[in-house]
Amino acid sequence: MVQSKSVVYAKLPDGFPVPGETLVVESKDVDISTAPEGGVAIKVLLVSVDPYMRGRMRDESKTTSYSSAFTLGEPIDGGGLAKVLESNNPSFQPGDHVTGLIPHSEYVVLDAQRAKTLRKIHNPYNLPLERFVGVLGMPGLTAYASLYEIGELHRSEKETIFITAASGAVGSLVGQLAKREGLRVVGSAGSDEKVKYLVEKLGFDAAFNYKTESPKEALAKYIPEGLDIYYDNVGGETLEAAIDNAKPHARFIECGMISQYNRKEDEEPYGVRNLMEIVKKKLKIQGFIVGDIGAKYAEQFQKDVQKWLHEGSITYQEDVTVGIENEAEGFVRMLRGQNFGKAVIKYADA
Amino acid sequence: MVQSKSVVYAKLPDGFPVPGETLVVESKDVDISTAPEGGVAIKVLLVSVDPYMRGRMRDESKTTSYSSAFTLGEPIDGGGLAKVLESNNPSFQPGDHVTGLIPHSEYVVLDAQRAKTLRKIHNPYNLPLERFVGVLGMPGLTAYASLYEIGELHRSEKETIFITAASGAVGSLVGQLAKREGLRVVGSAGSDEKVKYLVEKLGFDAAFNYKTESPKEALAKYIPEGLDIYYDNVGGETLEAAIDNAKPHARFIECGMISQYNRKEDEEPYGVRNLMEIVKKKLKIQGFIVGDIGAKYAEQFQKDVQKWLHEGSITYQEDVTVGIENEAEGFVRMLRGQNFGKAVIKYADA
Repeated sequence: MVQSKSVVYAKLPDGFPVPGETLVVESKDVDISTAPEGGVAIKVLLVSVDPYMRGRMRDESKTTSYSSAFTLGEPIDGGGLAKVLESNNPSFQPGDHVTGLIPHSEYVVLDAQRAKTLRKIHNPYNLPLERFVGVLGMPGLTAYASLYEIGELHRSEKETIFITAASGAVGSLVGQLAKREGLRVVGSAGSDEKVKYLVEKLGFDAAFNYKTESPKEALAKYIPEGLDIYYDNVGGETLEAAIDNAKPHARFIECGMISQYNRKEDEEPYGVRNLMEIVKKKLKIQGFIVGDIGAKYAEQFQKDVQKWLHEGSITYQEDVTVGIENEAEGFVRMLRGQNFGKAVIKYADA
Repeated sequence: MVQSKSVVYAKLPDGFPVPGETLVVESKDVDISTAPEGGVAIKVLLVSVDPYMRGRMRDESKTTSYSSAFTLGEPIDGGGLAKVLESNNPSFQPGDHVTGLIPHSEYVVLDAQRAKTLRKIHNPYNLPLERFVGVLGMPGLTAYASLYEIGELHRSEKETIFITAASGAVGSLVGQLAKREGLRVVGSAGSDEKVKYLVEKLGFDAAFNYKTESPKEALAKYIPEGLDIYYDNVGGETLEAAIDNAKPHARFIECGMISQYNRKEDEEPYGVRNLMEIVKKKLKIQGFIVGDIGAKYAEQFQKDVQKWLHEGSITYQEDVTVGIENEAEGFVRMLRGQNFGKAVIKYADA
């Protein structure tokens, strides 16, 4: 028996989640000495906290969404990395590092069904484990798969991509992939420090702080030629401005709409008024989920990005919160855009 | 020399065009006895009037659109059918019937450049010429090409398509093609008579009058299972309702947004507030122009639809206005949805 703390979903939030109210830490004893048939006992080392998780904090009856709602009273789950302690499954050995859908608990016993989501990591360059929940994890694969699947790169001569939340886990990789492809890359972020990072560290051609420049004016200024691809993480007013700025045949990769996620119950969502441009400009505006499109890119993605990380030609930034008891604060900081880099919660080093 | 009347674009409209003000009839002498090198002299028999033409009545400097603005003081143009009178082009002989981009004048001499848009019709079943500007013309090809190019038919088991302006030239063919493909087909139109036509004549599974039932309630009632494909001709509030009703992975074929075309200068376009569903439901919302996607379907389209018309297995409806002097009224009636079937202006029988 070990004492194991969990992050439990305790109450539906209205607007931003509240640590200690929406999410609470609970502790209980777990028997990790054996694993059930086909299952594993694991020690969780790292979990990823991502904007889409806010979408799982909802009344299940109200919305259809790609990801199921969290269950009240149960630990939340998501992408993470764990060490196998005991295994009753031929695919895993004690000591293996695995990624997959992981409950936010320090120690967990997974049955055969849940063990199916796990994948042993392949780490030939011995990269730090944090990478595997960020730039090499779901956010990285999201960036890679969606850019190639929906982006239709190089439809015309010299293309420009605009990326919002560009210093985030997904956006920063999208930008660097686009630079490798020879595109002109423009991003927006929520602080001058992040803007500087985009231009100086990631090699963006231009970037702006959306808190001090309106998207409409900034797009006219930084993309006078019009955008070919919009990688959307924010929605709302910026999406409207991007539609106005778009060139004919532009592709909109709809990864997220974080500006609309944390509305209060009584706040109206932003109404986008220029959808007529979809017809006029023959735009394609497409949502996706990495679960649908990721598999076909996963192998090439790991091969490419591990190599580039090893060579040092891909820059990444991680924002690590240490300790399961600090997870809820780390999650809300990320939702408010106060993190700088991929938000990761570290439960243990090994 | 012949006297030839033309429909001339005289003034930028604010809201609906006004016959005699926006469009005026002018007459002049035309020498049709010879054609220039590579060109033809033609007598125009039929022209098509379509919603997109309202979009060409704009200040060119203000919007980017797929179709160029009409030129003030010049005849408007569009899809039409003409008889060749004189030809200095080896592709055409006097007496040939040709379709293409045709100026709205009774008699026209086209130079080599403009003659390039013409195509001699192939009419093995000797179908009436009206068909070639409607169900066999640009509107028909629009329906056919966009449904197959963007619709991704049969992604799931038994799919439902919702079509707005379903009794119109494009919508009525889309609906019949979808029925042939085995889809469940639901349409909306602007009168009880049209609704009856959709169900009784075109075999739609359900239809409603959007003037007496709100799109939101009607979709919940007629498509409780959720739509897989939305064929959008209207935009605005109905688009918003369709996004709410859509199943995951639904495809939106954005053909037109007629609800937004005839706004007054000071009217705000409708703000669509639920675009977050694009991300949640992985929707694809795509505009297109038949000029880009039509060519690859054109041959199969003519073959299929001519055959089905000959067999009588495709139903069509034409709304013919006789006489070039009545064109502007016919055009505005179509924009107001007062036509029943494809709006065609007949200049002459032969």
